[in-house]
Amino acid sequence: MSDIKKLTKQIIDFRNARDWKQFHKPKDLALSLMLEAAEVGEHFQWKNDKEIQAYIKQHKNDIGEELADTFYWVLLMAHDLDVDLVKIFEKKMKKMRLNIL
Amino acid sequence: MSDIKKLTKQIIDFRNARDWKQFHKPKDLALSLMLEAAEVGEHFQWKNDKEIQAYIKQHKNDIGEELADTFYWVLLMAHDLDVDLVKIFEKKMKKMRLNIL
Amino acid sequence: MSDIKKLTKQIIDFRNARDWKQFHKPKDLALSLMLEAAEVGEHFQWKNDKEIQAYIKQHKNDIGEELADTFYWVLLMAHDLDVDLVKIFEKKMKKMRLNIL
Amino acid sequence: MSDIKKLTKQIIDFRNARDWKQFHKPKDLALSLMLEAAEVGEHFQWKNDKEIQAYIKQHKNDIGEELADTFYWVLLMAHDLDVDLVKIFEKKMKKMRLNIL
Repeated sequence: MSDIKKLTKQIIDFRNARDWKQFHKPKDLALSLMLEAAEVGEHFQWKNDKEIQAYIKQHKNDIGEELADTFYWVLLMAHDLDVDLVKIFEKKMKKMRLNIL
Repeated sequence: MSDIKKLTKQIIDFRNARDWKQFHKPKDLALSLMLEAAEVGEHFQWKNDKEIQAYIKQHKNDIGEELADTFYWVLLMAHDLDVDLVKIFEKKMKKMRLNIL
Repeated sequence: MSDIKKLTKQIIDFRNARDWKQFHKPKDLALSLMLEAAEVGEHFQWKNDKEIQAYIKQHKNDIGEELADTFYWVLLMAHDLDVDLVKIFEKKMKKMRLNIL
Repeated sequence: MSDIKKLTKQIIDFRNARDWKQFHKPKDLALSLMLEAAEVGEHFQWKNDKEIQAYIKQHKNDIGEELADTFYWVLLMAHDLDVDLVKIFEKKMKKMRLNIL
């Protein structure tokens, strides 16, 4: 089940079942997104290219969890801001291929 | 077309067609992810809740573009690190429902 | 005039003269700090070590401006949160020398 | 001792005594700066204005430590990039007062 609409529905159903939307103000969602992105970045601090390759083999799942957390906030924010993520993504890819971007 | 595998394929095909993988070192990908998340956050700087609601109505697409850019780097990193984003996401959602997380 | 107390006073006097404290809520100050740090980081995106050395020579002042902006928010936040920045810094340096940190 | 030159000297003497400059590549310093700024921001996640005021009273020192860490990387980067932090800061304050900025 890798459909974005369905993944987003999981997030929103979970949130609604607990009445947590009240806490999800846009600025806090954005802050959470930035904090999770930082959690991804932390894994690469101080390491050179060679060390990073070895590190990734060992810690693939840990880094993956931070990526999934970042992914979570992207989907949640897109939903709450009524943004069609895939549509904007496709538009960006099109511009990139046409070299406008 | 909202399937993550297909969206990721678009990103990788585009990258490969231009031989750009050489630039996509994990630390730089993580840095890009953090920078795009910051671009999302910048939209909410200084604004209170009421101002944010009005702002979102006006700038939905702009914020959406930064979310799509963040999304782009999440998918690319997950691919390059050989991380199954959906699998880790589903595991996280399961733990959250069982209240282990 | 490199005394932190005096530099901080410049920031606060400027802010007070314009009655801008009303906008300086802690969460927004923290967000500004994170955004300026990202502006520093952006200068190093995609570049390898050698390219960075050349880049620094050319863009020393630009990077310096982002560092000064980050510095600005650190001082302002420390003031508003009634934090003795130098005292905490000295305590950290002491722990580091004693290898407790 | 709140003079920036002396605080910076403490950082550099410490680093040199351990021969750690080899690890301090600019991109890693920038990444560290961004990560510490995120550590500051994390304290304000989810909290509203009233909760933040109460929180600050309780956790002043914790937030102060992250501010001091951010401050540390600002000074170190300024030194390594041969940036005169105070000079750029003063120039920025001047422009702000003249309303050019």
